[in-house]
Amino acid sequence: MSLAAIYETVKEDLDRVDKLINAVAEVDYPQLAELLGYSLKSGGKRIRPILTLLSGKLHDYNRSSLLLMASAVELLHAATLVHDDAIDRSTVRRGRPTVNALWSDDKAILLGDYLFAKAGELAADTRNLAVVKLFAQTLEIISAGEINQAFNAFNLEQTRQQYIDRISHKTASLFSLSTESGAILSNAPEESIKVLKEYGHYLGIAFQIIDDVLDFISTEEEMGKPIGSDLAHGTLTLPAMLVLERYPKDNPVKRVFQNRDRQGNIKLALELVRNSSIIEECYQVASDYCSIACRNLNVLPDNANRQILIDLADYIARRRK
Amino acid sequence: MSLAAIYETVKEDLDRVDKLINAVAEVDYPQLAELLGYSLKSGGKRIRPILTLLSGKLHDYNRSSLLLMASAVELLHAATLVHDDAIDRSTVRRGRPTVNALWSDDKAILLGDYLFAKAGELAADTRNLAVVKLFAQTLEIISAGEINQAFNAFNLEQTRQQYIDRISHKTASLFSLSTESGAILSNAPEESIKVLKEYGHYLGIAFQIIDDVLDFISTEEEMGKPIGSDLAHGTLTLPAMLVLERYPKDNPVKRVFQNRDRQGNIKLALELVRNSSIIEECYQVASDYCSIACRNLNVLPDNANRQILIDLADYIARRRK
Repeated sequence: MSLAAIYETVKEDLDRVDKLINAVAEVDYPQLAELLGYSLKSGGKRIRPILTLLSGKLHDYNRSSLLLMASAVELLHAATLVHDDAIDRSTVRRGRPTVNALWSDDKAILLGDYLFAKAGELAADTRNLAVVKLFAQTLEIISAGEINQAFNAFNLEQTRQQYIDRISHKTASLFSLSTESGAILSNAPEESIKVLKEYGHYLGIAFQIIDDVLDFISTEEEMGKPIGSDLAHGTLTLPAMLVLERYPKDNPVKRVFQNRDRQGNIKLALELVRNSSIIEECYQVASDYCSIACRNLNVLPDNANRQILIDLADYIARRRK
Repeated sequence: MSLAAIYETVKEDLDRVDKLINAVAEVDYPQLAELLGYSLKSGGKRIRPILTLLSGKLHDYNRSSLLLMASAVELLHAATLVHDDAIDRSTVRRGRPTVNALWSDDKAILLGDYLFAKAGELAADTRNLAVVKLFAQTLEIISAGEINQAFNAFNLEQTRQQYIDRISHKTASLFSLSTESGAILSNAPEESIKVLKEYGHYLGIAFQIIDDVLDFISTEEEMGKPIGSDLAHGTLTLPAMLVLERYPKDNPVKRVFQNRDRQGNIKLALELVRNSSIIEECYQVASDYCSIACRNLNVLPDNANRQILIDLADYIARRRK
């Protein structure tokens, strides 16, 4: 099933999620309304709300709770992006200027805070305390992961396990919140909740690995943001680690991290990765995580949504943008 | 009753709140633990948790819920301070270097996010959905107020009502969350909840007015941070507004806002305020808000805690640090 076909299966619900999200921008303060409108109309793949909807619809779901939670996970994601861009001093995201570039860092910090709060309020509106607590814990895990990443910027001594731990925190935690909350809100049995949580977790790892590969092999036009930005920020990702492993004595990644002609060596690192089997190796690792994500889905009810989860994993393992 | 005597009445509970807050720093990541330990051991007056405890203990309270919520409001306050300092590029708070000064802006943003989440988790641990929702809404109101303040930096055309609205958002909202949540968690009748919420709201306005006066008349040693910082950031507060009203043609506040010899004119503005009746006028306004805060407390049960709320308002209306 293509991604377009997957979207089609949840289109009606996703439209309602979009409405809930757009309603967030309807506030009294015109300047806050403008900031919210700008940051919430920035598109994005809506993968996380789709995960909540699909996970919920496997069982006995209450549509209105699911829609609230699907909106909450997307808003939480939006909030983290606004703060990430301020932290990284990024000027472009999804082909448009970032909030920090168009307004200022301080407005981006405060807008992110507002979005965190609004996401939390939507989660609370599900009236399910377990989900609210998970929501708060997920933001803790994401922030802790980002802090860990910040402290390890330009650190060459990182193991592959540390990389997986880091992306588990900063990305997979929100994917697993998306699936687990959908399962909880549809009164799924314990085993199903566990399986869906695991699915989200491993899918999130795969998603981030591909994201990290795309930062080497895609184009600014396709990604809507500059390529090579992980290297520029000193974030060691899987493709860069494989360069270090293959050329242990000297290589452009090492030179970037040692602050030797950063611009030139980022270019060389991208070329090196593009012209090597590192890309395929990364896609294989991501594909393996997608397989792990799906390994226990057979315990879930055998309905159409279960197959869509498998198709979605298949899409994520192969995506080129 | 002195402030020390007020502390004494809630000492045991406040010690337990401190333990809950200190436990937040016990995390696996050593660097995050260090950031948390540093930011949470910074002292502070603990006014907000005291408000939750006193408000709760007027009725049929569950100690463990009250302690959780008292910790949540203090953590929420701590989180906003960490972000405020990053936004204002402040280097000193409570006599110590700020997180952004000692580490970096990005770590301060992420630490603040972590603290927001942890505060939300503690609020969720009360297992009271009304309180969780109020908590999220309060963070929205605070952020919206701060955004409003950021957009109005160095804007001379602000009315006194706009000032009161702004401090209602950025300060009084958290005071009223503190009192209202205490009341809700102790199953207070609707009328008591309303009265305690109102008490917190007006007390918060008074508290911020005095804070704004102290920024003109106190010393860096006493405040633990530089004096005149509101003017330096272009934040128009009540004392500055009174200067503008009294000397409409030309005055040092106007000149600071017009970017004319900022350093010199901040000094002149502080002197002008210190040597005028503006201070007394501001204290009178704050005192009036404290009276409004207390006007309906007589509907509450006539126990010792009710009198302490009145004593606390009395302290806040007069405080000189």
